[in-house]
Amino acid sequence: MSEIEESLKRIHGSHKGVIGVIVVDSDGVVIKTTLNESTDVQQSYGLTISQMVEKAKQALRDNDELTFLKIKTKRHEFIVVPDKDYMLISLINPNESSA
Amino acid sequence: MSEIEESLKRIHGSHKGVIGVIVVDSDGVVIKTTLNESTDVQQSYGLTISQMVEKAKQALRDNDELTFLKIKTKRHEFIVVPDKDYMLISLINPNESSA
Repeated sequence: MSEIEESLKRIHGSHKGVIGVIVVDSDGVVIKTTLNESTDVQQSYGLTISQMVEKAKQALRDNDELTFLKIKTKRHEFIVVPDKDYMLISLINPNESSA
Repeated sequence: MSEIEESLKRIHGSHKGVIGVIVVDSDGVVIKTTLNESTDVQQSYGLTISQMVEKAKQALRDNDELTFLKIKTKRHEFIVVPDKDYMLISLINPNESSA
């Protein structure tokens, strides 16, 4: 198992309520995943979230940087940690997550 | 003072670290605000955040609904509560906020 897959498994297992973890590139294309859902569903998560992150990045001034995004819907919760070329998206069970 | 202004003042005062509260319509136009920043800066917050919310809403299936958005940058933190026609955006001092 590659180093990145080990990290994903660790993140997936270390927090209560984590349903799965997805790594996408800056275009929102799924690179790695521990999520047990169809590729289409995961791809739509990746694409939508990367477009939201892109919107935020465009509006930020030079001395600022997006560090974290939490998106809550009635059925899902996403924790997004953007990096320069990749994004880590954790899908959380809203009934088992903190506030 | 109108009812909505009273509610904004209450929200602004009731949480530690709240720098200001903005109400925008679904196009991101600032309706009411307690934020002490230029109109242009507030308008850019409103516009960017409403575009992010719109992106999320477009991707959601009929049986789901966006309920909360937290956006953290190195310098700011925004808590966004979207409603049907309006959005409440709280600007938080990241050094005084919870996780």
